[in-house]
Amino acid sequence: MSKGRLGAFSDGVLAVAITLLVLDLHASSEAGTSLAHQLKREWPSFAAFAVSFFVIGVIWVNHHALFALVDDVDRTLMFFNMLLLMWVTTIPFTTATLADYLQADGADSRLAVAIYGVSWEGMAVSFTLILRHLLRHGLLRRRLEKGEAQTALRRFGVGVALFPAATLVGLISPVAMLVMYAALNAFYIREQTPTASA
Amino acid sequence: MSKGRLGAFSDGVLAVAITLLVLDLHASSEAGTSLAHQLKREWPSFAAFAVSFFVIGVIWVNHHALFALVDDVDRTLMFFNMLLLMWVTTIPFTTATLADYLQADGADSRLAVAIYGVSWEGMAVSFTLILRHLLRHGLLRRRLEKGEAQTALRRFGVGVALFPAATLVGLISPVAMLVMYAALNAFYIREQTPTASA
Amino acid sequence: MSKGRLGAFSDGVLAVAITLLVLDLHASSEAGTSLAHQLKREWPSFAAFAVSFFVIGVIWVNHHALFALVDDVDRTLMFFNMLLLMWVTTIPFTTATLADYLQADGADSRLAVAIYGVSWEGMAVSFTLILRHLLRHGLLRRRLEKGEAQTALRRFGVGVALFPAATLVGLISPVAMLVMYAALNAFYIREQTPTASA
Amino acid sequence: MSKGRLGAFSDGVLAVAITLLVLDLHASSEAGTSLAHQLKREWPSFAAFAVSFFVIGVIWVNHHALFALVDDVDRTLMFFNMLLLMWVTTIPFTTATLADYLQADGADSRLAVAIYGVSWEGMAVSFTLILRHLLRHGLLRRRLEKGEAQTALRRFGVGVALFPAATLVGLISPVAMLVMYAALNAFYIREQTPTASA
Repeated sequence: MSKGRLGAFSDGVLAVAITLLVLDLHASSEAGTSLAHQLKREWPSFAAFAVSFFVIGVIWVNHHALFALVDDVDRTLMFFNMLLLMWVTTIPFTTATLADYLQADGADSRLAVAIYGVSWEGMAVSFTLILRHLLRHGLLRRRLEKGEAQTALRRFGVGVALFPAATLVGLISPVAMLVMYAALNAFYIREQTPTASA
Repeated sequence: MSKGRLGAFSDGVLAVAITLLVLDLHASSEAGTSLAHQLKREWPSFAAFAVSFFVIGVIWVNHHALFALVDDVDRTLMFFNMLLLMWVTTIPFTTATLADYLQADGADSRLAVAIYGVSWEGMAVSFTLILRHLLRHGLLRRRLEKGEAQTALRRFGVGVALFPAATLVGLISPVAMLVMYAALNAFYIREQTPTASA
Repeated sequence: MSKGRLGAFSDGVLAVAITLLVLDLHASSEAGTSLAHQLKREWPSFAAFAVSFFVIGVIWVNHHALFALVDDVDRTLMFFNMLLLMWVTTIPFTTATLADYLQADGADSRLAVAIYGVSWEGMAVSFTLILRHLLRHGLLRRRLEKGEAQTALRRFGVGVALFPAATLVGLISPVAMLVMYAALNAFYIREQTPTASA
Repeated sequence: MSKGRLGAFSDGVLAVAITLLVLDLHASSEAGTSLAHQLKREWPSFAAFAVSFFVIGVIWVNHHALFALVDDVDRTLMFFNMLLLMWVTTIPFTTATLADYLQADGADSRLAVAIYGVSWEGMAVSFTLILRHLLRHGLLRRRLEKGEAQTALRRFGVGVALFPAATLVGLISPVAMLVMYAALNAFYIREQTPTASA
């Protein structure tokens, strides 16, 4: 199977999901209050838009970097990739819910934080499944050194372990969680996937 | 005609349709009830999101596998493919309707089940039309053995016959229908299309 | 400039526009009436969905066939193509408006028909501009015979002339207009663009 | 890293953003007023749709022209490109807000104008960052003459400087601003990026 269409389909889903985020930005002359007031009241929507845009952006860059290394795709890989895309697709919903409930009372706010955390964890786990499958079945263009493969897996493991930790923090302070997420995101902006040359 | 753009356009439609499914997930701080309660009440939306995501995902994987075999596309094939895409495009609507009416009373619930069944059957029939056209007009990369072609057609015929059967079951028990659909879906996760090598 | 990205961008816009059509299909358990009654009342939405899906589908097939012939793209061609895409993008709006007002009284219904007609005419004119530009500036892969070029232009001229005619008919009978549009559409399903070989 | 997927992802985001603009065109038989009246009242939505469609269209054409020159992409370029796409993604929101408040009173109308200006400025700055990065790190296919590079940067600088100027004018007269934007847009319709051949 060619990896061309797998990339094209993934690009499509990521592009649609990242662009749908804008549908949560609203302002209306019929809201009964000034535009300035509406923007102020809805600042969590704007913050969540920017954060989620960069989350999906970072995923795309890493997806791109990882699949540039891939030599061959099999059916299992396609379904792991589909799992990743499913979690990405939930981001517009979990982002909107977080933005909506960020300023709400106790239980609701915590649940919204937890849901947001689940979609991040889902993406981190899916990415790790993809990476492990690629390494185990020799689907990469070049054979990685054992140490190199373990480093790559460990780096992804960081996310798998820290996203739930950040979410736990978020149950107490959502703002602290967003800061931790931003830091984790900044970590993955730097290249954590194996590179094309050793 | 090149098959590159046919794949690209199909990828685009499938990617948009699969991502639009998220628009049916809602929760709002203005709903007058807690977030936990809303999520509980709307569980059919989440179940339907996951099922329909994997339905479209499986269709994409099979579409990809089948067209990897295709050597040449003609105008008729394009319109059969357009027919398949039209049914795929209805999935966000039929899924939302099913989720909305799953817990409703008798007639409405049964009608929602039937509509959902129609979109599945439409996809199965379209896929079979595409496969038959490819086989009859020698558009595949290699000539299939007669037995091989019949096996492929019969395997798709399974869906064409069983989707309506599952829908009939759904008129009595929607949950039993969803289980049958999941089983059929699992069947198509395994490769049922002819493979590139004999 | 390469024509690859022009095709990819056009595929993207056409794929999104064709899939957004589904957003006009609605049914809700909170509508205060049975699902069967809602579907019956909203039949124009379903009819309009199917017609517009095939309109955009036919445009895609013809776009594909025409650009398979194109050897080179220039900046003017890109903007004519953008004009075509703009009219395509209006289809979800004009379709929804037509479906909504098809059963309304006199003036509103006629205006909805006229708006729908404008978007068809816009597409036909844009397509003709593209074809003329390709022919005049020798951007096709092979030089067409003079008669062949005129035939192609005349065939597109048919649409440019007949869409407004059909729209005029629609001011009296919207249903007669839809039948005429369907017939014109069927005409363009057959190949009307010059073919790759003479 | 290959530039193919960067182009494909950018095409996807631009295609979705440009097509989502149509979601702001509305008319409803339940609005309690005639269709003609609704269209007249909502003319800013139609004007804003056309302007924003061509803004995104011009960005796409320039993006295409610039990346046709690019030989190599690095991680920094990907994030600058992501920044550009983020601003493009906000266009459906800022356009809808501008259209909604164009006829509103003083402060609201001026704020809507300023927000619209911010998204244009964000795009101009991002484009300039991309161009500067390409020039400084020698990622273009051919080495530009020093004068040529400066000309290209200066031409983009025009937008960076004039968009805020136009926005300031818009605080007094939104219509004058739209005319200035249209003029700037017309400037970028002509090729302002370096060409493939010297």
